[in-house]
Amino acid sequence: MKTREIRVGSSVIGGSAFSVVAGPCSIENQKQLMTVANHVSERGAAMLRGGVFKMRTDPKSFQGLGKDALPLIREAKAATGLPFAVEVADPSHIEFFADDVDVLQVGSRNMHNYYLLKELGKTRKPIILKRGLAAHLKEWILAIDYIVAGGNEQVILCERGIRTFEPELRNTVDLAGAVWAQQKSGFPVILDPSHGTGSPDLIAPMAKAALAAGLDGIMVEVHPNPACALSDGFQALTLENFDQLITGLHPIAQALGKKISRNGSSEQK
Amino acid sequence: MKTREIRVGSSVIGGSAFSVVAGPCSIENQKQLMTVANHVSERGAAMLRGGVFKMRTDPKSFQGLGKDALPLIREAKAATGLPFAVEVADPSHIEFFADDVDVLQVGSRNMHNYYLLKELGKTRKPIILKRGLAAHLKEWILAIDYIVAGGNEQVILCERGIRTFEPELRNTVDLAGAVWAQQKSGFPVILDPSHGTGSPDLIAPMAKAALAAGLDGIMVEVHPNPACALSDGFQALTLENFDQLITGLHPIAQALGKKISRNGSSEQK
Amino acid sequence: MKTREIRVGSSVIGGSAFSVVAGPCSIENQKQLMTVANHVSERGAAMLRGGVFKMRTDPKSFQGLGKDALPLIREAKAATGLPFAVEVADPSHIEFFADDVDVLQVGSRNMHNYYLLKELGKTRKPIILKRGLAAHLKEWILAIDYIVAGGNEQVILCERGIRTFEPELRNTVDLAGAVWAQQKSGFPVILDPSHGTGSPDLIAPMAKAALAAGLDGIMVEVHPNPACALSDGFQALTLENFDQLITGLHPIAQALGKKISRNGSSEQK
Amino acid sequence: MKTREIRVGSSVIGGSAFSVVAGPCSIENQKQLMTVANHVSERGAAMLRGGVFKMRTDPKSFQGLGKDALPLIREAKAATGLPFAVEVADPSHIEFFADDVDVLQVGSRNMHNYYLLKELGKTRKPIILKRGLAAHLKEWILAIDYIVAGGNEQVILCERGIRTFEPELRNTVDLAGAVWAQQKSGFPVILDPSHGTGSPDLIAPMAKAALAAGLDGIMVEVHPNPACALSDGFQALTLENFDQLITGLHPIAQALGKKISRNGSSEQK
Repeated sequence: MKTREIRVGSSVIGGSAFSVVAGPCSIENQKQLMTVANHVSERGAAMLRGGVFKMRTDPKSFQGLGKDALPLIREAKAATGLPFAVEVADPSHIEFFADDVDVLQVGSRNMHNYYLLKELGKTRKPIILKRGLAAHLKEWILAIDYIVAGGNEQVILCERGIRTFEPELRNTVDLAGAVWAQQKSGFPVILDPSHGTGSPDLIAPMAKAALAAGLDGIMVEVHPNPACALSDGFQALTLENFDQLITGLHPIAQALGKKISRNGSSEQK
Repeated sequence: MKTREIRVGSSVIGGSAFSVVAGPCSIENQKQLMTVANHVSERGAAMLRGGVFKMRTDPKSFQGLGKDALPLIREAKAATGLPFAVEVADPSHIEFFADDVDVLQVGSRNMHNYYLLKELGKTRKPIILKRGLAAHLKEWILAIDYIVAGGNEQVILCERGIRTFEPELRNTVDLAGAVWAQQKSGFPVILDPSHGTGSPDLIAPMAKAALAAGLDGIMVEVHPNPACALSDGFQALTLENFDQLITGLHPIAQALGKKISRNGSSEQK
Repeated sequence: MKTREIRVGSSVIGGSAFSVVAGPCSIENQKQLMTVANHVSERGAAMLRGGVFKMRTDPKSFQGLGKDALPLIREAKAATGLPFAVEVADPSHIEFFADDVDVLQVGSRNMHNYYLLKELGKTRKPIILKRGLAAHLKEWILAIDYIVAGGNEQVILCERGIRTFEPELRNTVDLAGAVWAQQKSGFPVILDPSHGTGSPDLIAPMAKAALAAGLDGIMVEVHPNPACALSDGFQALTLENFDQLITGLHPIAQALGKKISRNGSSEQK
Repeated sequence: MKTREIRVGSSVIGGSAFSVVAGPCSIENQKQLMTVANHVSERGAAMLRGGVFKMRTDPKSFQGLGKDALPLIREAKAATGLPFAVEVADPSHIEFFADDVDVLQVGSRNMHNYYLLKELGKTRKPIILKRGLAAHLKEWILAIDYIVAGGNEQVILCERGIRTFEPELRNTVDLAGAVWAQQKSGFPVILDPSHGTGSPDLIAPMAKAALAAGLDGIMVEVHPNPACALSDGFQALTLENFDQLITGLHPIAQALGKKISRNGSSEQK
C-alpha cells in the first residue's frame, strides 16, 4: 500500500520510497560518528540516527554524551546533507534538540508516556514512534492520536520487536503486526531489525523481509568496531555488513519498483 | 520475610504489617470520594488512593479531575487521618501534588520512564512503584535504584499483573514474581488484584493469597456504584464487597500473627 | 467454593479438603521412593506421585525407569496405603499402568493431545489434567470435555505455571487463572508450585497462597537429596523443606476450617 | 542459505527451491478438493495439503471426514501428480495413511508429543514438523532429533505463529525465529501465514517476506468459497487470492534466482 509521505529536508519516508535510517546506537566521538555517517550516506541512507541520552535498565551503564553530542550531530549533517534522528526520553529534550535534530524518536519504553507524546504533538518535527515492548497493535495506533491531536501529523511508526516467551533472540519481530499497523493507519512503518533480533545474522534477512512485505524502510545500528561499542555492540553491523545488507536489498527493491535512496527516486551516488 | 518499614503519617507499610490501600480508580466528586474514604478507613485501611490525571489508552476517554481533585483530597485526609496516594504521570505532577499528596505512585506504563524516577528520587515522599506491563523482575528491581540514587529510600513495590497470552483475565497476576522481588530487594511489595485480574470474583481470593504468601499489603479499587464509575468500573469493589474482603482476610492474618490496620498493631476501630 | 469430590482409595480430592500430592520427579530406585513415600505419608499427604516415563526436551536426558518402576510403586502403596499418580504420555501407557497406578496424569505438553484425552475418558481412573504451557483458560476447561465425553467425570485440574516473557523463574504461576478455572468448571484444581516456580524458596509461599485462594491442593516434588536427582533436582524440596511447608500450611488451613489430610477430616497421624 | 533437499515424488522442498504447499484446511468433499487441487497445481504448487482428522479445541466442532477422505486424496494426487501432506494427530494415523499420503504433518499441538515423533522416526516418509504454540526455538530444533533418531532424516520445519499477548491477530509470526531455526538446523523451513496471521490481508505480505528472508516455502489454506468452509474459513484464500499471491511472489523469486515450481527448476506449466 502507499502510505503518507513524511518529508524531512531532501529525504522522504513513506509513499513509494524504501528508506534506510542508519547510525550508531550511541554517539561516542567525532571519528566514530563521521565514519558511520559518511559511509551510510554514500550507500543511499535517507537519514542518520544516533543516541545522545540513553535510557539504560541499569543506571550504572553508559548514559550517552549529552550536550557534547550536539556539535558532532551538526558536523555529520553538514557533511552528508542528511537529516538526523535522535531519541527523546523526557519532555525537556524537545527544547534541548530544537536547533540541531530533525526527527524526534520515541523509544519503546515511552510509547505509553502520553505526556511526552502530547508535547511532541506541539512540535513541527517528524516523530518516529516505536512500538512498546508489550503494546497491543491498537494501543500503538491510538498513541498516534496523542501526537496528531497537537497538530503534528508527521508520524513514522517503527516496529522493534516485542517481548515474548522466546529466550533465544532479543525480541520477537512482529512483521505481520507492522504490516497491519501500516494498513490500518496509513502512516509509514519502518522496521528496526537490530533491536528486533539482537543478532547480526538475522538483520539482513529481516530487512529484506520488511522490504518484500511492503514496509517503508528500516532502521539499523552500524558501528565501525562493534566489539568496542559503548552500548549494544553485539547487535551492530560493521561497515562491511552494512554494504552487504544494502547490496542484498537492491534486486528486491528493483523487482518491486522501489528505490533505496533518500527520496525514493532513482538518483543514487 | 520482614521487609523495611515505610512510614507515612501514622501508617506503616512493610515490616510486620499487612496494609490495605483503597479508594476509587478516579476521584469523581466529593460525595463519591468521601463515601469511599470514610468506609474503608473504618474497616482498617492504612492509606487512601484515587486518580487525578488518568493516562488512558484512548485520548478521548475521561482523563481525571485535575486540580479540582485537590480540595477533595484534603477533605478526605482530614476526615480519616489517613495518608493519600496519587499516580504521577509526568515530572510536573510532583510539584502539583507537593502540598496535598503523601505518596506518589508510578504507574505500570511509566516504570521504564527513568527521567520520572530520577525526579521522584529527589523528593522525600514514599513512592509506590508499579511493575511494568512486561517488565522483567530484574528490571523492576533495578528501577528502584533510579529512585534511591536521589536519596529517597522509601519505595513500595506494587505487582499489578503482567501481559501474557491469556485473554480471559485483564492481566496475569505474577504472585510468585512479587514474592521473588520482595525476597531479593527487601522492600515491601503489595498486590493490586483489581488491575491484576480485572474481575471482582477474583479480587478476594487473590488478596488472601497475597497475605498468605507473605506480601505486605494490597491496593484495591472501591466505588459506591461501580456501574456508574467513569473509569474501570468493571473491576471496582462495592462497599459490601470491600467488607467481605476484609472479613475474609482477618482469620488468615490472625493465623499468621499479622494485623490489618494502619500501623500493623492490634488497635482497630 | 466447594468443588466436586474425587475419591480414590481412602483419599479425597476436592470438596472441603486441601490435599497434598507429593513424591519425586522421577522414580529412581527403591530407597529413594520408599524414603519419600513414608515421609510424606506421615505428614498427611493424600496421594503419592512419581515419574516413570519422562518426556524430556532433550532426547539424550534420563527418560525414566519404565517397567522397573512398577514393583516400587506397588511397594510404596502397600507401605503407606496411599493412592499413586503417574503421568501417561502415550495411549499405550494406560494399559501399562492399569494394575498398579490409581490416578493418571496428563502433562502440560499433552493437554492439547485430544486423542490421549479421549482414551483416558474410557478409563475409570481419576485424571490429573495439567494446563498446557500456553493454553488459554477456556481451552483447559474444554479439554475436560474430551475426558468427560467418554464417561469419566473424575478430573482434577492442575495449574503448573504458564510460559511468559519472564526469564527469572521457570514459569509464571497463574493463580488467579486457576481460581477462575475452579469457579467456572466446578472441578477441583490443585497447584504445582515446583514446576510453577522452579525455585524452592517460592514453593512454600505459593503453596500457602493456593490454600488461601481456595484451591483444592498442591502437588510438590520431594527428593531425599535434590542435588543428586536424575531430573529437575533444582526444584525439589528436601524432606526438611517438606516438613516446613506442611507446618506452614496448618495454621492457615485451621483458620479456613480445612484439614490437610488424606480425606479432609481432622484425623491425622 | 542452502538447506538440505527433501524429495517427495517429483517435488523438492529445500535446496534452492521455494515451494508452495496449498490446499483446504479440511477436506470436505470431492468437488471442493478437486477444484482447489487442480487450481493450485496449475499455478506451480509443489505439494497438496488437506485435513482429515481435525483436532479442534471444542469437541463439538467438525472433526474431519476420516476414512471417507482417502479416495478423494487418491483422486487429487492422480489428477495433479503432486504429493499430498496430511496431519497425523495420533500414532494410529501413521498406519491409516500408509498407502495414500506422502508427507505426514505434526501439528503445533503435538510438537512436544515425543511418542508420536518417535513413531514418525520409524517411517520413511517426509515429516512436516510445525512449531508448538509456545515452543522455544531450541525445543523445536531438539524435536527434530526424536524423528532423526529413528532413521528418518526427511524433516521440514514449519513456522505457524506463536502465542503472544497480541489479541489483534490469531498468532504472532516469528519470521526471524524461523530463519534462526533454518540457519542452526540446516533443515528446510516453510511458513504457514494462514494460521500465522489468521487474516487474508496479511498472507500475501508475509509470503513475500518469507521468500525474501530466505525460507524454503509457504503452506497456505485455499478454499473455493471461504465463507462456507467447515473450519477456519476466515483465514482461507479464495482461488483469486491465491493467484494474486503467486503473481506477487514471481518477481521477488526471480530477483533472488529462485523458481516457484514443484522442483525449483524453471519448468512451469
